[in-house]
Amino acid sequence: MPEKRLTVQEQPPAVAALSEAELLGRIFPRLSLKGNHTQATLLGPGDDAAVVAAPDGKTVISIDTQVQDQDFRLEWPNGYRTTGFDVGWKAAAQNLSDINAMGAAATSMVVSLTLTPETPVEWVEDLADGLTAGIRDLGAARCSVAGGDLGKGREISVTVAVLGTLDGNHAVLRSGAQSGDVLALAGTVGHAAAGLALLESTVAIGALRPEQRVFLDLQCRPRPPLAAGPAARGAGATAMLDISDGLLRDGLRLATASGVTMDLDAAQLRALADVLRPASELLGTDPMSWVLGGGEDHGLLATFPPHVQLPAGFTAIGSIQALGSNESPSVTTAGRSADTGGWDHFAH
Amino acid sequence: MPEKRLTVQEQPPAVAALSEAELLGRIFPRLSLKGNHTQATLLGPGDDAAVVAAPDGKTVISIDTQVQDQDFRLEWPNGYRTTGFDVGWKAAAQNLSDINAMGAAATSMVVSLTLTPETPVEWVEDLADGLTAGIRDLGAARCSVAGGDLGKGREISVTVAVLGTLDGNHAVLRSGAQSGDVLALAGTVGHAAAGLALLESTVAIGALRPEQRVFLDLQCRPRPPLAAGPAARGAGATAMLDISDGLLRDGLRLATASGVTMDLDAAQLRALADVLRPASELLGTDPMSWVLGGGEDHGLLATFPPHVQLPAGFTAIGSIQALGSNESPSVTTAGRSADTGGWDHFAH
Repeated sequence: MPEKRLTVQEQPPAVAALSEAELLGRIFPRLSLKGNHTQATLLGPGDDAAVVAAPDGKTVISIDTQVQDQDFRLEWPNGYRTTGFDVGWKAAAQNLSDINAMGAAATSMVVSLTLTPETPVEWVEDLADGLTAGIRDLGAARCSVAGGDLGKGREISVTVAVLGTLDGNHAVLRSGAQSGDVLALAGTVGHAAAGLALLESTVAIGALRPEQRVFLDLQCRPRPPLAAGPAARGAGATAMLDISDGLLRDGLRLATASGVTMDLDAAQLRALADVLRPASELLGTDPMSWVLGGGEDHGLLATFPPHVQLPAGFTAIGSIQALGSNESPSVTTAGRSADTGGWDHFAH
Repeated sequence: MPEKRLTVQEQPPAVAALSEAELLGRIFPRLSLKGNHTQATLLGPGDDAAVVAAPDGKTVISIDTQVQDQDFRLEWPNGYRTTGFDVGWKAAAQNLSDINAMGAAATSMVVSLTLTPETPVEWVEDLADGLTAGIRDLGAARCSVAGGDLGKGREISVTVAVLGTLDGNHAVLRSGAQSGDVLALAGTVGHAAAGLALLESTVAIGALRPEQRVFLDLQCRPRPPLAAGPAARGAGATAMLDISDGLLRDGLRLATASGVTMDLDAAQLRALADVLRPASELLGTDPMSWVLGGGEDHGLLATFPPHVQLPAGFTAIGSIQALGSNESPSVTTAGRSADTGGWDHFAH
């Protein structure tokens, strides 16, 4: 038998080579979440719609989209190639975080994938793996993928709608913060922004030390603190949201919804910035800009009455104050106006 | 005071000129559905997630995306320009149809919009109007828009996730058809395909007679028969789906899920094709290809036990037969193999 000789480099098969049914056949087996024993999905993929349990008669729902070259680049200036696993994980993380921020637990996801014809099938399989790994490893133990939709486009786009349950409890809104409340943070802030800066730098991935690489990894695969949302609700949090667009920007949303001033503790901010030094010193960046303006870590910002013992994972980083007459809701640092920043899809 | 003189044609403002908050401020007021008095949304836009009532402890959920140049063109060969209203209406219709096909009633939608920077703000406002008009005019009287997400991309993409309620009843699946069942259709089939052919023709819109224009309008703003789904469930339908990809293709899905043969009545098919003659004679097309292969009318295909009186809006168009030994599930016409067709996102 002659040796197999390749005269041209073999290309991995792209989605254009498969029918919709064939591609779904490659994806579905990877969406199994057998370890999640208390799944709420009553009817999964295969019909026109799925059916999900909502035992307390209410469903929490959110939706979030990632678009190629807007929310991720397939290849970054520093050479990193975004894997399907990254995009799937991030889709899970972002959406699970929105449910977490209400004090709820995720029960189900439906996924709409828009793929370019040249997307490698492997990349899509990897995305399915990342989605299930995100759900599993972040601890959304009652969640599974209930269904989805598949289509073609000129750019990759991944939309997830996520359902959750409050288990009979109330939702924690943005609007309940009161004067005198403690402001507390769960999870990290600025790490994903440091990672984004590393991805957009010319420092090669191989040159990163582990304590720098960790920020890049968190940008690609965020780790929202999923136990913290229901814990905050249980401890009596008066208001909560997740920090997806930056501490100042999301803080202002909470302050505005509640009609209060949010004052950040300068020492706590410095401590949060210090953690980012391995990246900021490499890039010559002020780490405080990442702390105040960086989104995508999906930490939780919550307010608690002053007498409450903060639940595990939360650190006090400021306080809530009443608005003076003629004052607008704002975010201040040690009483001084803080420069607003963060991500705006259209203005930036 | 000098007269205001315009030396260049004024462009309508595009979304790039607005911040995310400003654009949301233009959209939200248009999502009000005050006429829908029994809305299930308990907490609407403004927090990290919405909360929707699910009184019987179950939520039906589906998701669907429309992408520019795949699912619609901003300008068609015949000169028609797709309005934001069309895209919003179609997003509502497609998603409401998926809930209808389960025998359920829609309770809520969340919407993720990806917009190009040059999209006119008016077009987006129009989309919001079309979405609410679709929900209202198609009769989804308990549904409202509970929230959404906004982002930027190189092409317009609209994803809707829709929730529904079964009101304590079971869902009608694709898998329940039995030998001897009557096959019935509610709504139209082939009309949207005739409309698509008109849009892709060079026959100017102004040259269309009203009985031709109606197909174009149905392609742009489908009218799924929303009362028919719950009625079919109530009447004892054994299986159901909506025809989004064509009668043969969706019929085969039902036949496959149920493990049966679906036989279509030739006289009924001819009657369905005859209705399309105003368009088929203009374009010189065989109208049967639209009846068998055309999707997007979002009619319902359902099976009923033979003794059942079909609910209002359903017409018998065939029957269900047991598989012979060594037979695979199939769709036949008067016992003869029917050519499969219809829409495949990747194969076509």
